[in-house]
Amino acid sequence: MDVQTLPDQAARARMSPAQARALFATGLEVPTTGWCAGYAQANLISVPNALAFDMLLFATRNPKPCPVLEVLEAGCVRGPEGSPVYGDPGADIRVDVPRYRVWRHGELVEEVPDVLDHWRDDLVTFLLGCSFTFEHPMLEAGIPVRHLDAGRNVAMYRTSRRCAPAGDLTGPLVVSMRPVPAGQVADAVRITSRYPAVHGAPVHIGDPAALGIDDLSTPDFGDAPTLQDGDVPVFWACGVTPQAMVLESRPEIAITHAPGFMLVTDARDALYAVP
Amino acid sequence: MDVQTLPDQAARARMSPAQARALFATGLEVPTTGWCAGYAQANLISVPNALAFDMLLFATRNPKPCPVLEVLEAGCVRGPEGSPVYGDPGADIRVDVPRYRVWRHGELVEEVPDVLDHWRDDLVTFLLGCSFTFEHPMLEAGIPVRHLDAGRNVAMYRTSRRCAPAGDLTGPLVVSMRPVPAGQVADAVRITSRYPAVHGAPVHIGDPAALGIDDLSTPDFGDAPTLQDGDVPVFWACGVTPQAMVLESRPEIAITHAPGFMLVTDARDALYAVP
Repeated sequence: MDVQTLPDQAARARMSPAQARALFATGLEVPTTGWCAGYAQANLISVPNALAFDMLLFATRNPKPCPVLEVLEAGCVRGPEGSPVYGDPGADIRVDVPRYRVWRHGELVEEVPDVLDHWRDDLVTFLLGCSFTFEHPMLEAGIPVRHLDAGRNVAMYRTSRRCAPAGDLTGPLVVSMRPVPAGQVADAVRITSRYPAVHGAPVHIGDPAALGIDDLSTPDFGDAPTLQDGDVPVFWACGVTPQAMVLESRPEIAITHAPGFMLVTDARDALYAVP
Repeated sequence: MDVQTLPDQAARARMSPAQARALFATGLEVPTTGWCAGYAQANLISVPNALAFDMLLFATRNPKPCPVLEVLEAGCVRGPEGSPVYGDPGADIRVDVPRYRVWRHGELVEEVPDVLDHWRDDLVTFLLGCSFTFEHPMLEAGIPVRHLDAGRNVAMYRTSRRCAPAGDLTGPLVVSMRPVPAGQVADAVRITSRYPAVHGAPVHIGDPAALGIDDLSTPDFGDAPTLQDGDVPVFWACGVTPQAMVLESRPEIAITHAPGFMLVTDARDALYAVP
């Protein structure tokens, strides 16, 4: 798609999930932050059926990085009929994500705008909550979201913390980081803790070294962050965690989204708020 | 055990989970309501490994009746080392529950104080949250819990609502009912909604007929309820739901707890509170 025809930021925010997915299905490859305001975005991982129990158990045991929004059973390209998350009859998980990653034996072999050529009927697909869901209520509360202001992808880091293993699946916790003005950190905690299904409260506030992060300016995924004077780095569990698990656990094949290039679902963010 | 040697209600409430489980392991068969105040109790279902993904997916898709607290991988008799739920090295899921039910092809074939004779190394065990966890904060807020006052098991009902199916697993929603004084229903909602991992907010308030329940005085599981003047029947999703699923889906073998005779875990109720 010609860059001139791209919807501007306001138009992206107003777009319906089905409209956005239709654009991505035609091959548009852009990060989805800021698209379809009010709708939940999802991290993606597909693995062979033989690994599906271990993957679902990994997610169950690590609900902060891997909150399950929907599961597409073996070979299914969308959720069950009536699914509020991804039940649209026009949905097709092989094309709806703007950019995919294909992994073989733990190696990233390709980044592609669709996975039609890689699809197998034994693939089970997991849609996991994404922290973009709580950026909107943060903004509404007057908390700046620096990467949105800068038009960048959020910064993500591999940490020295380990996830709880499940079967042969194991790996480190990956976090996203948002710089928050010191006086608003408590509000950021309060607001995001209302969304446990989309990573919820931060896992860490302050000192990056305590998470094994040496240099905030060189994230492992996404773009470098922009910290302003008085900002505190606040870290949330991140849905890229399964990709770090794939790197380490080396399943025969796995398909994921590319970090920041999420699936836009039909579920309202409000669906995931707790009191 | 001689009934005279049973700890009284206050002593039961003060007991540690390991102490209570040790009593149950010796064959004591009593409902666990009111035992080990402050510790989460769990519903139990074990199924063969071949059904484990479907069972975990059933739980994931029906988080209100089936909130997963821990999963014991194939053949494991306790949770992973360090599990805050059920990682005690002395724990043994084959004896720790006061009363089990053994199901074959969807038929209840036996109720037994242990399942040593029925155990198989391919059984995967799911521990699911139990609404007893929120009875303590209800009591602390001054909301009467009628079945505790009456020394009875909570009343449970099969409803006309369907669970979301997973693979071949399907069945109706089962609910527990607590009569709540009309002026305290809102508080009961507010308090229990803080515990999404243990059934959370009610699924229905008032008219039993809307759930397909004809007669409150004849529950499908547990004891008949005691409603006082001005009480409203309040219904919560119930961890007996997997047993109704077993009845309908007829797996080769399933082991569950007997309704009301729960596993007492080592997890603090507070672990499951959200803001």
